[in-house]
Amino acid sequence: MSLTIKLHVTTSYLNLNLNTSKNTTKVANFKVKLRTKPIYHCDPLLSVVSNNSAMHASAQPGQPAIRSSLIDPDGGALVDLVVPESKKASKALEAESLPKVNLTKVDLEWVHVISEGWASPLRGFMREDQYLQSLHFNSLRSQDGSVVNMSLPIVLAIDDETKERIGSSPNVGLLGPNGDLIGILSSIEIYKHNKEERIARTWGSTAPGLPYVEEAITPAGNWLIGGDLEVLEHIKYNDGLDHYRLSPQQLRKEFDRRQADAVFAFQLRNPVHNGHALLMNDTRRRLLEMGYKNPILLLHPLGGFTKPDDVPLDVRMEQHSKVLEDGVLDPETTIVGIFPSPMHYAGPTEVQWHAKARINAGANFYIVGRDPAGMGHPTEERDLYDPDHGKKVLSMAPGLEKLNILPFRVGEITRCF
Amino acid sequence: MSLTIKLHVTTSYLNLNLNTSKNTTKVANFKVKLRTKPIYHCDPLLSVVSNNSAMHASAQPGQPAIRSSLIDPDGGALVDLVVPESKKASKALEAESLPKVNLTKVDLEWVHVISEGWASPLRGFMREDQYLQSLHFNSLRSQDGSVVNMSLPIVLAIDDETKERIGSSPNVGLLGPNGDLIGILSSIEIYKHNKEERIARTWGSTAPGLPYVEEAITPAGNWLIGGDLEVLEHIKYNDGLDHYRLSPQQLRKEFDRRQADAVFAFQLRNPVHNGHALLMNDTRRRLLEMGYKNPILLLHPLGGFTKPDDVPLDVRMEQHSKVLEDGVLDPETTIVGIFPSPMHYAGPTEVQWHAKARINAGANFYIVGRDPAGMGHPTEERDLYDPDHGKKVLSMAPGLEKLNILPFRVGEITRCF
Repeated sequence: MSLTIKLHVTTSYLNLNLNTSKNTTKVANFKVKLRTKPIYHCDPLLSVVSNNSAMHASAQPGQPAIRSSLIDPDGGALVDLVVPESKKASKALEAESLPKVNLTKVDLEWVHVISEGWASPLRGFMREDQYLQSLHFNSLRSQDGSVVNMSLPIVLAIDDETKERIGSSPNVGLLGPNGDLIGILSSIEIYKHNKEERIARTWGSTAPGLPYVEEAITPAGNWLIGGDLEVLEHIKYNDGLDHYRLSPQQLRKEFDRRQADAVFAFQLRNPVHNGHALLMNDTRRRLLEMGYKNPILLLHPLGGFTKPDDVPLDVRMEQHSKVLEDGVLDPETTIVGIFPSPMHYAGPTEVQWHAKARINAGANFYIVGRDPAGMGHPTEERDLYDPDHGKKVLSMAPGLEKLNILPFRVGEITRCF
Repeated sequence: MSLTIKLHVTTSYLNLNLNTSKNTTKVANFKVKLRTKPIYHCDPLLSVVSNNSAMHASAQPGQPAIRSSLIDPDGGALVDLVVPESKKASKALEAESLPKVNLTKVDLEWVHVISEGWASPLRGFMREDQYLQSLHFNSLRSQDGSVVNMSLPIVLAIDDETKERIGSSPNVGLLGPNGDLIGILSSIEIYKHNKEERIARTWGSTAPGLPYVEEAITPAGNWLIGGDLEVLEHIKYNDGLDHYRLSPQQLRKEFDRRQADAVFAFQLRNPVHNGHALLMNDTRRRLLEMGYKNPILLLHPLGGFTKPDDVPLDVRMEQHSKVLEDGVLDPETTIVGIFPSPMHYAGPTEVQWHAKARINAGANFYIVGRDPAGMGHPTEERDLYDPDHGKKVLSMAPGLEKLNILPFRVGEITRCF
């Protein structure tokens, strides 16, 4: 189902951003406020489903469940690039035999993202035609003429030596940062990595000090390698948080099981605050007023690369769990999951990616605040982006027409706190 | 009529670019090759129509003319923002009474472009929502959901003092570089001019030395002013070349009168060469082979701002006329006109503008060479853009699906010369 109702909620929403000075937030500020006992050991799905009998009245044993109609994933079908168990051994043998490409930590996060279908209909690292469309149009046109949003170049860089090693092989094996075999990239295409152009068109700036650029582009090779991805198994991090890393397929299944008729996603890379919680509860109330019977919140902190002075993921997850445990958010109508993407801090360009990926996870409403994915300019005393551009660009972005954008303002805080 | 046949001609086309060293071409190199007698005094339409009786057999007096079906302008109707003669006096009075904005030479070229409908459906300098769509998506979405290409931000910058002077006035008067009253911009919107972001997203580089940036952005104000444009009369330059400045409306009327069933446009900012001429003649031959009865060439040199070391417009026009006079190109099937746009040298981003504007002039075929609108990197020893990106981006650009792109290769030259 593609919902077309547009809800503009701009009067009573709150954004109490703890990071008032965006580039100088210290982790320690948060740690003192948090419980020391980690409570993220439980299954985020099981923990909230146990009391949820009212919503599943029609899903009694022996009775057919009424399935909700979630928003279609981009391209019509959710991409899943994990090799079936029956083929895993032969694929591993094949991967072993191929020239290898070494993945960085950030590369592996992108492998995770692509393989689970967050970037549907993308089926691998971008070839040049996809890269160019992403850079210039923030979207991809399919063969049938339909357009999906694709604002960030999802690319894999290799250096001259790796290119030489690959030679004319049409396929390569992928090795994780620890040397473990991750998967295969096939029918590859190698093309130039013009870093200056990529950075300028993605960030609207080439100033030194852009965190993702320094982490993942400046040290990277001068070539990009695109191709079709297959991974031998779901990407895991073994950091005690893997149970939070719900794939779009798992999320859709859960929304379906709960018979959600509206899913509203909230992207976070900072601790969740009472102000956020109020906002999310108010959004639910308004969706109910609009006639939805069972709106579900996807509280969806970003789990990939973030800049060093952001609050670490484990601390944030602990804090998110606390908010749920304290009853500030209703666990019956909330799912907390980790969005595995790395962070670009690319403002209006990146917020499209954040929204688009949530469509693939089943969300038909997306809450957007002021200056999403923004940060201070790395060399000038100003914000890198106009704080209003994020929601404006989001509301006009090609391929996001089917998503309902819920903007909220920062100006209301003083009235409530 | 929207023609959907795709013609890919890549084997026998030629591009003999006289500017082998792009940034160092000297004007003098060309001047010595050209006739000293200017021959651009005649009307480019009248000059080629006189012998063209065969094509107008059905357009005898008293008989209804058979009209060709030209490609639709973007947005469905060609924009014409020249005030009708009957309202000119009252509009001039109104403009006089308003706060004034002073236009630079380049600003005036854009007023020319917008007022004649080259940028249809754009009806004035961009407001912020159009600016953002142009920067991020290289296209504009209309209210009916249709998409037109719009790759360059067509904006008017003002400084703090002018903004102050405008105050809360909803309309402003526009003054040309010589202080003459040009027109009115109404229902204005003033928004921030983030030069770094505009430059980075338009050029994919912020390197010092980009010609348009140095001419028109660096010295410009920190605000952009958008609104609906009206001009008191067609923009003229009184440089002996105004008769070449055929508007899209004039061109369409002439294509119609000649009953063109295909119009193929060739953008130039350098002197035309025998290699180009061969290419254009070969294109015509191929279009005839495809079944078109009367393909007309629009030989369309760019007439706005160019960098100082490019060949000046008057020299180029003289040379273009010579090529026609010498019979290298058939004047019966060729129209030479000046495209009034300033040059950005923004490669793949700009070539979309060049193509889109020619749709509005009636062209359904667009010839694209290697590295269109490209130049050497201003600070590095390399091309600013990958020479192949221009035609690739053009072939995938939103809103240009109805245009037939005719790429040609540079590699064939040595076989023919």
